[in-house]
Amino acid sequence: MPKQLSKHISPVLARRRQTERLAVHPAEPSDGPLTAEELQLAVRNHSMPLEALRNDVTPPGLHYLLDHFDIPAIDGNSWHLRIGGAVERSLELNLRALSRAPSISVPVTLECAGNGRSLLKPRPLSQPWTLEGVGTAVWTGVPLAYLLAQAGVDDDAVEVAFTGADAGIQGGVRQQYARSLPVDQALRPDVVLAYRMNGTQLPPQHGFPLRLVVPGWYGMASVKWLSSIKVLSKPFAGFQQSVAYRYQQDADDPGTPVSWMKVRALMVPPGVPDFFTRQRIMPAGPVMLSGRAWSGHGRVTRVDVGIDGTWLPAQVAQPPAPFAWSAWSLPWVADPGDHELSCRATDATGATQPLDQVWNYQGMGNNAVQRIKVTVE
Amino acid sequence: MPKQLSKHISPVLARRRQTERLAVHPAEPSDGPLTAEELQLAVRNHSMPLEALRNDVTPPGLHYLLDHFDIPAIDGNSWHLRIGGAVERSLELNLRALSRAPSISVPVTLECAGNGRSLLKPRPLSQPWTLEGVGTAVWTGVPLAYLLAQAGVDDDAVEVAFTGADAGIQGGVRQQYARSLPVDQALRPDVVLAYRMNGTQLPPQHGFPLRLVVPGWYGMASVKWLSSIKVLSKPFAGFQQSVAYRYQQDADDPGTPVSWMKVRALMVPPGVPDFFTRQRIMPAGPVMLSGRAWSGHGRVTRVDVGIDGTWLPAQVAQPPAPFAWSAWSLPWVADPGDHELSCRATDATGATQPLDQVWNYQGMGNNAVQRIKVTVE
Repeated sequence: MPKQLSKHISPVLARRRQTERLAVHPAEPSDGPLTAEELQLAVRNHSMPLEALRNDVTPPGLHYLLDHFDIPAIDGNSWHLRIGGAVERSLELNLRALSRAPSISVPVTLECAGNGRSLLKPRPLSQPWTLEGVGTAVWTGVPLAYLLAQAGVDDDAVEVAFTGADAGIQGGVRQQYARSLPVDQALRPDVVLAYRMNGTQLPPQHGFPLRLVVPGWYGMASVKWLSSIKVLSKPFAGFQQSVAYRYQQDADDPGTPVSWMKVRALMVPPGVPDFFTRQRIMPAGPVMLSGRAWSGHGRVTRVDVGIDGTWLPAQVAQPPAPFAWSAWSLPWVADPGDHELSCRATDATGATQPLDQVWNYQGMGNNAVQRIKVTVE
Repeated sequence: MPKQLSKHISPVLARRRQTERLAVHPAEPSDGPLTAEELQLAVRNHSMPLEALRNDVTPPGLHYLLDHFDIPAIDGNSWHLRIGGAVERSLELNLRALSRAPSISVPVTLECAGNGRSLLKPRPLSQPWTLEGVGTAVWTGVPLAYLLAQAGVDDDAVEVAFTGADAGIQGGVRQQYARSLPVDQALRPDVVLAYRMNGTQLPPQHGFPLRLVVPGWYGMASVKWLSSIKVLSKPFAGFQQSVAYRYQQDADDPGTPVSWMKVRALMVPPGVPDFFTRQRIMPAGPVMLSGRAWSGHGRVTRVDVGIDGTWLPAQVAQPPAPFAWSAWSLPWVADPGDHELSCRATDATGATQPLDQVWNYQGMGNNAVQRIKVTVE
C-alpha cells in the first residue's frame, strides 16, 4: 500500500481505494466456463489426488501445492534468515545454525484456503481447486517460539511478519509473498520453522531451505522460502494479509481475515474411474468407505456418511496430532444402481459442514460436503 | 476389444466399429472453452512448472504425472512380477529378487505424448496440458533385457506387453493400463525396470514398486505399477496401443502409433509472473535465457532462440545421457517494451520444431515452438 495513502486515511478506505485503482481481483466471479488463466493455474499447482487420502502421511510429491509466483532458486549454502523488527537483538541464522537449534517434528494437515473454490456458483476466478487442495506431512524444524525468545520480543509487539523469497505481481502490486501472525500465534509451541518434510530435506516446491508451518491454519499462513521474519508493533498491511485471503461479500467489502481451517471430511472415491469423466464404477457387495477429516477449530468428534441422503455415523480414529487429520471408515453393502455418497464432519466446537455452499467473493473456506456419484454394477 | 469381433474382421475394421459403438473418444475436438472434465484431469495430473527446467534432474514432486486411473495401493511385501508368454520359462519375482539382480541407473527425460495438447486449435478433449508435461529423473533398476534373457524369449516373439495394476474405464473399455514394445526395443540395454527414482524408493505416483522406463519414447510406453510382462508372438491389441496414443486425422483414421519423442526445446520463463495471468515482467538489462532441449530421434544439435522473430543460436551443452535433456543458454540484453521469446531445437536427424501447429485428432506430439510474452521495464 503506498505510504502517502496509508498515512492519511483509514486502512479500510485505503484498501478500498487501492481495490478500485489497481483492479486487485482479476475479474468478477463467473457463471461462465473456465478461463485460460484458471487452466494455467490448475496446470501449475498440484493437487492431492483423493485416493491419497489412504495415506496417514502424504508422500511429498502428492501433497498439494499452491505457489503464487515461481518456485525460487535458492542456494542453501549462502541462504540465511534475518529475524528483526521489534526485538531486543536481531538475529541472522544460516542453515547450519538452525540445524544446531532444538528441533520438533509435527504432523500437520494443511489445506489451501481456496480448496473447493471451483465448485462455487458463481465461481471466483483464481486457482480453480475442486476438493484436492490438501495434504498431511510431518514437518521438522526449529520452534519459532525458541528463536523469538532468543531475539527477545518487545512488549509492544502485536504481530510477526514472514516474507518469502518468491516474488511477482498480484492485484497490480509488486511483492514478495508475505503474511503475518498475531504474536500469541507466533509463540505457540507447535509453530515450526521447518527444514525437513517427512524426514527428508524440504523439497524446492515446499519451501527449501526453510518454511513456516502454522498447524490448524489454512496454508496461506505457512510462508515458504523464508527470507525474513520481522516483529511488528503495528498490524501488517501487506497484500496477502489485507487484500487477499479475506472472507468478503463483494469487492468493496473489507471483509474478515482467513485464518483457521474449517471442519471438513473427504472420502477416498470407491471403485474405479472413467479416464475422462472420472465417474466411479464399482461392484456390488461389501466395501469399506473411508477417508480423513480435520478442523482447525477443535478435534473432529464425528463423521457422518451420506448414502443417497441417509446419514450414518462413521468410526473416527484418534488423530496422530492435534492438527493432523483423523481417519474415518464405514462399511457399506453396495447394491446395484446409481448412488450418491457424501461425508460430513463435526468438530468439538459443534461446527459442522454445510450441505450447500456458503459463498464468498474470493472463494475462501468452501467446506460444503463432498458428493461422489458411483454406479454399482 | 471383444473377442467375437476381433476373430472375424480385420483389426482396423474392428477398431473402427468399436469407435462408433463405444464412443472411444469422449467428444470431438473443440474450439469452445475448457470443459469441467478437462479441469478435473488438469487438477489431478501434475505438471512440471517451467522454472524447474533449471534442474538437471527434476525433484520427484515436480516431475510430470499423467495417471489414467487411480494411483493403486500396492503392498511391496506381497507384490510380485510375472514374466511369461512366449518364453522358455516363466518367472515370478518379488522385490527382494529384483534387488539382487544386476542394476543400472539411467538419466531419462520423459514427456507426455499429449504435452502441448491444449494449445491446439481445435482442442482435442483429454488432459489439457499446456507445455509442462515433462521431467527428467535418474531411474535405477534391472535391465529388462537381463530378465528377458533369463526367461528365454521364443524365436517367434514379436512384442512384449506390460500390464500395470492401475484399472479403470476408458473409451467404454474396462481395462488395466497396458502397453507393448517391439522385441528389439524391449531388448535395448537401457530399457529399465525401475524401483528407484533419483536415488530413493519409487514414489507411489511414479509406479511403486516397479515401473518400466523406455528412454526416448513418450511417457505412455513407460508403464507404471507393473504387475505382469508377457512376451507375445502376435502384436498387442490393447486399448492404449490400438486406440489411444495414435496420430490420427479423425475418429475413423486408424492412424499410426505414437512412439519416440519429437524434438523440443523449452525455456525457463524469465522475470517474474503475475499471479493470475502468468504474464512475465522483467527489468531491462542483461539476462541469461536458458532452458532444456531433447529428442527421441537423436542428439539435439542446435537450439535457436527467437527474440521478436529474430533467431539466434544458443549454446547447447552435452546431455548427461543419450535420452536426457541438454541444457541451453543464450545471453540477451533486454530493452524496455513488450517482447516475444521463443526457442526451437533441431536434432541429429535434421528434424526441427514446427513454428505452427501440426494438428492431429488426439492431440499427440504437439512440439510447436513455445512462445513467451515478456514485458521489460
